[in-house]
Amino acid sequence: MGIGIDLGGTAIKGGIVSDDGKIIQTLEYATIPESGYENILLTISRMINELRERSESVSEVGIGIPGVIDAHSQMILSCPNLGWKNKNFKSDLENKLSVKVNLINDATAAAMGEYAYGSGLGASSMIMLTLGTGIGGGIILNDQIISGTHGVASEIGHMIVGENFYDCACGKNGCLETFSSVTALKKYIDLQLQNGIPSNLAQYDMINGAIIFDEARNNDQLALEALDRMCRYLGLAISNLNDILDPDIFVIGGGLSAAGEFLLNKLIGSLQRFLTYKDLAQPQLVLASLGNDAGLIGAACLKNYH
Amino acid sequence: MGIGIDLGGTAIKGGIVSDDGKIIQTLEYATIPESGYENILLTISRMINELRERSESVSEVGIGIPGVIDAHSQMILSCPNLGWKNKNFKSDLENKLSVKVNLINDATAAAMGEYAYGSGLGASSMIMLTLGTGIGGGIILNDQIISGTHGVASEIGHMIVGENFYDCACGKNGCLETFSSVTALKKYIDLQLQNGIPSNLAQYDMINGAIIFDEARNNDQLALEALDRMCRYLGLAISNLNDILDPDIFVIGGGLSAAGEFLLNKLIGSLQRFLTYKDLAQPQLVLASLGNDAGLIGAACLKNYH
Repeated sequence: MGIGIDLGGTAIKGGIVSDDGKIIQTLEYATIPESGYENILLTISRMINELRERSESVSEVGIGIPGVIDAHSQMILSCPNLGWKNKNFKSDLENKLSVKVNLINDATAAAMGEYAYGSGLGASSMIMLTLGTGIGGGIILNDQIISGTHGVASEIGHMIVGENFYDCACGKNGCLETFSSVTALKKYIDLQLQNGIPSNLAQYDMINGAIIFDEARNNDQLALEALDRMCRYLGLAISNLNDILDPDIFVIGGGLSAAGEFLLNKLIGSLQRFLTYKDLAQPQLVLASLGNDAGLIGAACLKNYH
Repeated sequence: MGIGIDLGGTAIKGGIVSDDGKIIQTLEYATIPESGYENILLTISRMINELRERSESVSEVGIGIPGVIDAHSQMILSCPNLGWKNKNFKSDLENKLSVKVNLINDATAAAMGEYAYGSGLGASSMIMLTLGTGIGGGIILNDQIISGTHGVASEIGHMIVGENFYDCACGKNGCLETFSSVTALKKYIDLQLQNGIPSNLAQYDMINGAIIFDEARNNDQLALEALDRMCRYLGLAISNLNDILDPDIFVIGGGLSAAGEFLLNKLIGSLQRFLTYKDLAQPQLVLASLGNDAGLIGAACLKNYH
């Protein structure tokens, strides 16, 4: 049994997770970044106390953080959604509680969840890509979480895979997430609509991933082309990762993975084009299975992987 | 004390290596690929016996192989320079000898040597790039060699980093080694000379890495531009690797690394342009220090890393 917390920019989710990876109880509070560091700290410590009252004795708590955690000091170096920099969150929280606190990047927490109880079950090395407004990553090799020397490993979304018509928020040009995230799809479709390309997508005030996939299934040419472009770069990136790490399995998660087999088949086709050793090393490529719970479950089972 | 063998396309080098990483004795025989698998097997077993007679009791031998070794069966799946496919080299050799044989990809063996006794000394995670006619790689994370599920990890030279005017030998377009190897430099300079770009390089019947660096130091504009292009893509690739794995240190080896600080400074400048977290994660970037001995030394110390 473990306790996991998923600290997001809009909500803090906490849960008690059984030893076979099932969420037994959950709590959810709103995240109010403007309330400041101390108040969020207090909210989380209250949540942990409440979960501990409802669970058997738990001596460690795992927390997924949407930011960079220093590998040695465990200090949160940067957490843009909450406006935090250089926060001793772990020790500040431990001072309020009588449990050990383990921090993990939120995308890595989701990977950990899928690895331990989801689509990565049985693998000993796995790379997860989380396709949402950005692209997150989590890497587990030989049963070890790869966090890197400075805590910035698995930033797969910032791998440069080509030249793009707009720059990434990180300041670089060509990052994977400017080609293959929801944001990237929307920007590309907006550009093409502005260029006068005819499409059903023009009728929507706001488009999202689900609408784009729906219109692609209805054979809308712009939607199809945008998804092909997204999958081309994603296949290229996965092939690069395969050349570098050759893991047992790649797991595709995040909001866009809701498109299911339609996305997966396009992606497998794209990956085949870019694989270096087609005869020797065909990686498995599957959809994530734990949905939004992956991060919470992964944070809760972190105690088994250090 | 250990015995290492570096099996290359033109020579088989063997050596006795002390526990502090010094080569005490060496043997070198020519590799004659046309002589066939059995003869090369015999040559190597003879070499190992000779080295064992000269050394203290050694119960394991490490051999660097220029090919793909299956991670589970240790079978050599592919070894293009020798024309080998699916060879049970390890067990065939063990049947002739009374020692345990450990196989390792030759680029990874070089990385292992630098990690244990060269420029990676003291690091716990290291990526080595070997710049020669192609680009090889070796990855060590948390003291573990990353060979991959199918034995094709660390194929850094096949990471796609852009679009190029010629295809890679692997069949893909845009592989790092088509931008940043000796072969890539020569092809690019040939193209530019054919395009009528004036350069001192036009006077040579055959150019090589040393000539290109010499002319660049003499301020030849084409040589400088070719090296800048090479370093631009290499910096991009190292930044990608840093985003994915965030290791302690990157080590640059291979023939081109003989250009020393001139290359290193260009490369550091290029890497700075592409780093995602300039404030948080500055990777170390250094030249290899063991030269051509790295592979032999790495193969010999392989016994300490499994």
